[in-house]
Amino acid sequence: MEIVVLRVGHRPERDKRVSTHVCLVARAFGASGILIDREDKRLESKISDLVDKWGGEFWIRSGINWKREIKERKKKGWRIVHLTMYGINVDDVINEIRKYEKILVIVGSEKVPREIYDLADLNVAIGNQPHSEISALAILLDRIFSGEELKREFKNCKIRIIPSKRGKTVLRVDSLGEE
Amino acid sequence: MEIVVLRVGHRPERDKRVSTHVCLVARAFGASGILIDREDKRLESKISDLVDKWGGEFWIRSGINWKREIKERKKKGWRIVHLTMYGINVDDVINEIRKYEKILVIVGSEKVPREIYDLADLNVAIGNQPHSEISALAILLDRIFSGEELKREFKNCKIRIIPSKRGKTVLRVDSLGEE
Repeated sequence: MEIVVLRVGHRPERDKRVSTHVCLVARAFGASGILIDREDKRLESKISDLVDKWGGEFWIRSGINWKREIKERKKKGWRIVHLTMYGINVDDVINEIRKYEKILVIVGSEKVPREIYDLADLNVAIGNQPHSEISALAILLDRIFSGEELKREFKNCKIRIIPSKRGKTVLRVDSLGEE
Repeated sequence: MEIVVLRVGHRPERDKRVSTHVCLVARAFGASGILIDREDKRLESKISDLVDKWGGEFWIRSGINWKREIKERKKKGWRIVHLTMYGINVDDVINEIRKYEKILVIVGSEKVPREIYDLADLNVAIGNQPHSEISALAILLDRIFSGEELKREFKNCKIRIIPSKRGKTVLRVDSLGEE
């Protein structure tokens, strides 16, 4: 299964930290890459630097025409899952979502164009209470991958954490003799 | 089981939106309340207004001496679970956590005092990749409550969402005849 996230309504200054967290969640929870509607070179380079350090092949592209992107992917067989607190509860549709082969997950900012609700194959809610697009994305991906995503290894990392009961254990890959 | 969240390292201006999201996740995913170390009346009133509208009994208190709070709760039998990417993977300790009756979940900002790692009963990682304290808290609470938290009803709400396939369906409680 391949998952790509599309962030709609990104405002580079105001959403700086929230969009960064959305990108990090997308990567850590198993998406292949993220598309950001408004161009934001600073965010691109921040995420690319992080991938360089922590490994894996996660990619980011900004300055995307969201409408064209959605329509073109639909033609190629991608299914569109729009995260919204107004949608159907994730647990009522997760079995259907798990059958999809290629999923574009739309994560909006505060206001989302009405058209997205219509373009989506599924409008999915992570509960119907207000919380955060960051937590919504994490829970969706966690449900899709059944928690296995948290054990994934990221290849070609320069730095890696060894889980520990107290304190911080960080391995640098040159100290592992892998480079 | 009772869960309270303690946010350490909150910087009112810089962390405004991230801390708001942490509060919303705490509420939506089943915690009773949140303690914020630095005083922040604006955040308090924002969250109180939201509870007033969306219901439930979630509470917020800011201007907390975190060290005293942790030590006093430990004396009263609370268990301390510190969320950190350096910790033990949540899935390796979730059975132990589920046995606890009262849990103080510590959610740090960028830098967390070393002492917290020592005061914690468990240092728990939601995977060992960088993502967000918002997603980490959501996944921890979702694991603890096994997804049931997303179906919880919040009493005394003025507004409620009816899940729908397309668009937005919002009920106002006076239109339900409950007030």
